[in-house]
Amino acid sequence: MTLHRIAVLGASGYTGAELVRLIATHPTMEIVGLSGERKAGMEMGAVFPHLAPMGLPRLQRIEDMALDRVDLVFCALPHATSQAVVKALPGKLRVVDLSADFRLRDPAEYAKWYGQPHAAPELQAEAVYGLTEFYRNDIEAARLVAGTGCNAAAGIYGIRPLLEEGVIDPDRIVIDLKAGVSGAGRALKENLLHAELSEGTHPYAAGGTHRHLGEFDQEFTRAAGRAVQVQFTPHLSPMNRGVLATIYVDGDPEAVHATLSRRYDLEFFLHVLPFGALPSTRHVRGSNYVHIGVVADRMPGRAVVMVVLDNLTKGSSGQAVQNANLMLGAEETAGLTLPPVFP
Amino acid sequence: MTLHRIAVLGASGYTGAELVRLIATHPTMEIVGLSGERKAGMEMGAVFPHLAPMGLPRLQRIEDMALDRVDLVFCALPHATSQAVVKALPGKLRVVDLSADFRLRDPAEYAKWYGQPHAAPELQAEAVYGLTEFYRNDIEAARLVAGTGCNAAAGIYGIRPLLEEGVIDPDRIVIDLKAGVSGAGRALKENLLHAELSEGTHPYAAGGTHRHLGEFDQEFTRAAGRAVQVQFTPHLSPMNRGVLATIYVDGDPEAVHATLSRRYDLEFFLHVLPFGALPSTRHVRGSNYVHIGVVADRMPGRAVVMVVLDNLTKGSSGQAVQNANLMLGAEETAGLTLPPVFP
Amino acid sequence: MTLHRIAVLGASGYTGAELVRLIATHPTMEIVGLSGERKAGMEMGAVFPHLAPMGLPRLQRIEDMALDRVDLVFCALPHATSQAVVKALPGKLRVVDLSADFRLRDPAEYAKWYGQPHAAPELQAEAVYGLTEFYRNDIEAARLVAGTGCNAAAGIYGIRPLLEEGVIDPDRIVIDLKAGVSGAGRALKENLLHAELSEGTHPYAAGGTHRHLGEFDQEFTRAAGRAVQVQFTPHLSPMNRGVLATIYVDGDPEAVHATLSRRYDLEFFLHVLPFGALPSTRHVRGSNYVHIGVVADRMPGRAVVMVVLDNLTKGSSGQAVQNANLMLGAEETAGLTLPPVFP
Amino acid sequence: MTLHRIAVLGASGYTGAELVRLIATHPTMEIVGLSGERKAGMEMGAVFPHLAPMGLPRLQRIEDMALDRVDLVFCALPHATSQAVVKALPGKLRVVDLSADFRLRDPAEYAKWYGQPHAAPELQAEAVYGLTEFYRNDIEAARLVAGTGCNAAAGIYGIRPLLEEGVIDPDRIVIDLKAGVSGAGRALKENLLHAELSEGTHPYAAGGTHRHLGEFDQEFTRAAGRAVQVQFTPHLSPMNRGVLATIYVDGDPEAVHATLSRRYDLEFFLHVLPFGALPSTRHVRGSNYVHIGVVADRMPGRAVVMVVLDNLTKGSSGQAVQNANLMLGAEETAGLTLPPVFP
Repeated sequence: MTLHRIAVLGASGYTGAELVRLIATHPTMEIVGLSGERKAGMEMGAVFPHLAPMGLPRLQRIEDMALDRVDLVFCALPHATSQAVVKALPGKLRVVDLSADFRLRDPAEYAKWYGQPHAAPELQAEAVYGLTEFYRNDIEAARLVAGTGCNAAAGIYGIRPLLEEGVIDPDRIVIDLKAGVSGAGRALKENLLHAELSEGTHPYAAGGTHRHLGEFDQEFTRAAGRAVQVQFTPHLSPMNRGVLATIYVDGDPEAVHATLSRRYDLEFFLHVLPFGALPSTRHVRGSNYVHIGVVADRMPGRAVVMVVLDNLTKGSSGQAVQNANLMLGAEETAGLTLPPVFP
Repeated sequence: MTLHRIAVLGASGYTGAELVRLIATHPTMEIVGLSGERKAGMEMGAVFPHLAPMGLPRLQRIEDMALDRVDLVFCALPHATSQAVVKALPGKLRVVDLSADFRLRDPAEYAKWYGQPHAAPELQAEAVYGLTEFYRNDIEAARLVAGTGCNAAAGIYGIRPLLEEGVIDPDRIVIDLKAGVSGAGRALKENLLHAELSEGTHPYAAGGTHRHLGEFDQEFTRAAGRAVQVQFTPHLSPMNRGVLATIYVDGDPEAVHATLSRRYDLEFFLHVLPFGALPSTRHVRGSNYVHIGVVADRMPGRAVVMVVLDNLTKGSSGQAVQNANLMLGAEETAGLTLPPVFP
Repeated sequence: MTLHRIAVLGASGYTGAELVRLIATHPTMEIVGLSGERKAGMEMGAVFPHLAPMGLPRLQRIEDMALDRVDLVFCALPHATSQAVVKALPGKLRVVDLSADFRLRDPAEYAKWYGQPHAAPELQAEAVYGLTEFYRNDIEAARLVAGTGCNAAAGIYGIRPLLEEGVIDPDRIVIDLKAGVSGAGRALKENLLHAELSEGTHPYAAGGTHRHLGEFDQEFTRAAGRAVQVQFTPHLSPMNRGVLATIYVDGDPEAVHATLSRRYDLEFFLHVLPFGALPSTRHVRGSNYVHIGVVADRMPGRAVVMVVLDNLTKGSSGQAVQNANLMLGAEETAGLTLPPVFP
Repeated sequence: MTLHRIAVLGASGYTGAELVRLIATHPTMEIVGLSGERKAGMEMGAVFPHLAPMGLPRLQRIEDMALDRVDLVFCALPHATSQAVVKALPGKLRVVDLSADFRLRDPAEYAKWYGQPHAAPELQAEAVYGLTEFYRNDIEAARLVAGTGCNAAAGIYGIRPLLEEGVIDPDRIVIDLKAGVSGAGRALKENLLHAELSEGTHPYAAGGTHRHLGEFDQEFTRAAGRAVQVQFTPHLSPMNRGVLATIYVDGDPEAVHATLSRRYDLEFFLHVLPFGALPSTRHVRGSNYVHIGVVADRMPGRAVVMVVLDNLTKGSSGQAVQNANLMLGAEETAGLTLPPVFP
């Protein structure tokens, strides 16, 4: 059994911690380096006490890491910092980037949604969009894989096969999304304080301004073979983990259900529930699973698709490990069969 | 200043407790009787310790109450029990019913949504639908007012003026709703346990099966002057109080905002936020206020209307007190100006 | 009825918002000025959207406020900033300070617990410790009243009468306290983020290091007529409001209960529960009430006293209004009879 | 590698679900039977949707299970039902019982704390108390192991070595405990509803009435070689998982820390933090780890010991798997090295 030497850049954020959690029970991955710029020199257990018993290396600056003997790097740095960092890495090093920096194939789209020019367009050309179930072959061959947005993953799982098969109207798609708090990261923002967030729900980035729309546009347009735009309203729900996308589509509900069931039939992590059954974020918490429900509306020709996943696992770090498994020739599900944690 | 003698039937549930909370600071209402069938004989402070210091009467059976000297009864009994109880009350007694029993004007609609024939159709004929801002004159003259569903109220506030003015397409309305837990009442159901509910979000009664659709159909059809059906998916959010309705409409966003602003301009409890501003349930918690936001989608001709209210206050008990004020000739806002409780 | 003109300094924090909430239904207080240094010029409704409908003055810098026509100032500034600010106020202006700056009579004790010399020892000499039920007469006559710590209030209510009456051993007192999150203020600290705090409990400032011990030492020593030290461990509980002090004492449980019952018999806001009954923070949430329970341990001669209050109301802003009522000659309970908000 | 065939009796409760979660990644255990009396015939995925993808056997009645080919049974039935069930099992079948039915060696103590005579005193004689780190050798040789109470485990980890070594006063021990909601099980009780429990904290079973005191008395008396009673107040904290025991002892703080550090030095799951460091329940959530902190009080000769564990994992199902590993000759940590889930 080949052991894979792994480094995590940006290990002091939530996706970094989740990577460490997943790799801890991975049969072939071994963490040999952890970076954290501002916290360089600290024990990982001081940054995340829940990881103290894991026996991890200290946090380092990236420039101090010995990356030449590393097989793969997870890059969990903040948006807009990955492009420069990845560019400076050894040229043959495999990279799974969890930020938004390489998700949009067209650098012009990147500039539009993220408000600055792309700093590494030459790398963008080789980056593969990391939604495993749709780009598996490309990922196996890739050197650089771009993790998807957690909200984007939930929406695309629910819609993309329907556009590919032409069973829904591409001009009438509404994604109403409820997201857990950890999706916003470990950032010091007033609106992320417990006293601000608990016991309430609110929309944010409404009206077509959320950056994950760039991914929706890209993937849905590709799937439909024509330009597709969707309506998208994310909400913050007072829970730490979880994304629920409630998707309103025009199409025959049974055809919608059949299409999704067929498309995901052989996928280990994607479970289409029986027609009419409803999913819950708590049933995938802490796991790499996705549950998808489809119901018919009382209005003929309209269906509701509901997708749940854990934003830190299947929405980012679990997806990253799944892609790394493919890139390293390991079993795709290795380290990812942890059942959900409930209650 | 006239004092009004008030009785609350069904005081051992959450809406009963909320009525007591509101009446406690009401300048002219005085509680003279509280009923609770299974808990008859108990002190209210044993049922709701937070109300112990209020000096309230003991819980009684309805049949043991001296209702002849009462000015108005709030009936906060479970659905399907109010019809018989209200029928047996003294014929001239003013009643505000908080259940679903008198909300649907057409007894056939009641039978359809609630699965049993209406037990008091003759009373239904005189019942006024209690959405104060739309039926104020009728309520002032009414003997029997039917409180609205809490979800229904949120949806109707956001949509009804738009249908009246014809600024949206009546065939393309989606209401995606996030509701707090107390809306389900103090019922012993596994899915309402803390360990089941906290830290997650899930849809329920999806696909056009939720009973509040009966109210939407009734009110929207009346407003539009033609049959209107909406899509409606309620979700349970892990918070105790609050309803957020995210409503997707086809119409000019600025016209939508202007219509709602104009319609509610003089309403004390309804606040239309500046165009583009987003509301939050926590900003109305514990209060009788409603906040309404409108944003333009990036797709021309589509708008999102967002309505928040506290399901126990403006969504039920606060609305009930507001209507009672009108029926008793008191100041409409009396007892209802408590600011929201945040954090 | 005399109207009182009120200014709130430091209105952009949680205790500031709570003051505004309470004054909103106060029969004789009127807010004429709000200060917020960093947010000067902003509408209060932009800082706290739940207060937007209240019709409040804009935030100002203190130096820009017209304080000469103000009857009383609530000073809700951060610790260590009040001393200088209060010193600079007009000399006859009544002040209720909610910070820790004037709580400790002995400036040396202040220096010891807060790590810096007292900046206004001459004002300290006239400051009255604001635990209303113990210093009512002094407060009525005071110009400057120092609000107590929220944790300190809970502990003192449970213990002080027992020391005064000599019914417990002053050398065997343990206060184990569970506090809600809002007690830490609206501060941008990583450990106050929702994702860090929810779904867990932890101690902080253990081992006799919490600053409220200065208040315990001061009040208990005065009550006992000899030096008294207690053990005190505060914990953060994943809730927004509430303090629960579980106090272990050596003494006859029935004598403990009788002493507290007798001492608080005539106090409007303090409720000693029947012997053996247990309080809950949720039964006082949003209100100025305190519930106190006493149980006998199975070990003879040992009792447990449990005190609950809302840290933002009776623990700070409610207490402040109560004291202000006394200072202004208003009814002591004016504006403070709002029942708790449950659920 | 030997595979072990496992059955879980009482799989429809939270400890049952947690057993299934842990066994799912266990290298040598395989679930061959699940019982659930009232839910017999149902798919496990219908009872716990988060376990639907696991490919589990249907729930059966115990009498319908083929237990002759099973290597070990986990009995996760409600208290007071295990004694009869275990008595009826095949005589050589290994059993780990998670209920309270076999925890107290003296049947008279059982009768005293649980209010009914012991139904299987002959089995009690062979039952081993399942606190692994203290009864490892006995557990290896046992046929019947009794899982400890989750609160009891937390308290005993913090205190037992101190009594064995004589470094604390056995007559001055206070255990103030904060427990998560799942410890109360999946029971339909009003006080476990989300709307009742969230956003508040309260004590329960105070004054020496909680049944886990039977375990404390038993273990501490054995450790000290004389009768020992402790004071114990459990509280319910609004979180799903976690137990925090804050323990006040009279003894030299550094000796306390040194004793615990030495005693647990070689224990895989027990981590004594550096002197003065404070633990948090969220740092062990979902894992089999225990974190223990010790601080000196400012009063000389007094120390505070703080113990955290996950009640469903190390407090019940994780401990049960750990004991089963020993009984079956497997690696003690097999299946139990899952890192904590944070956030």
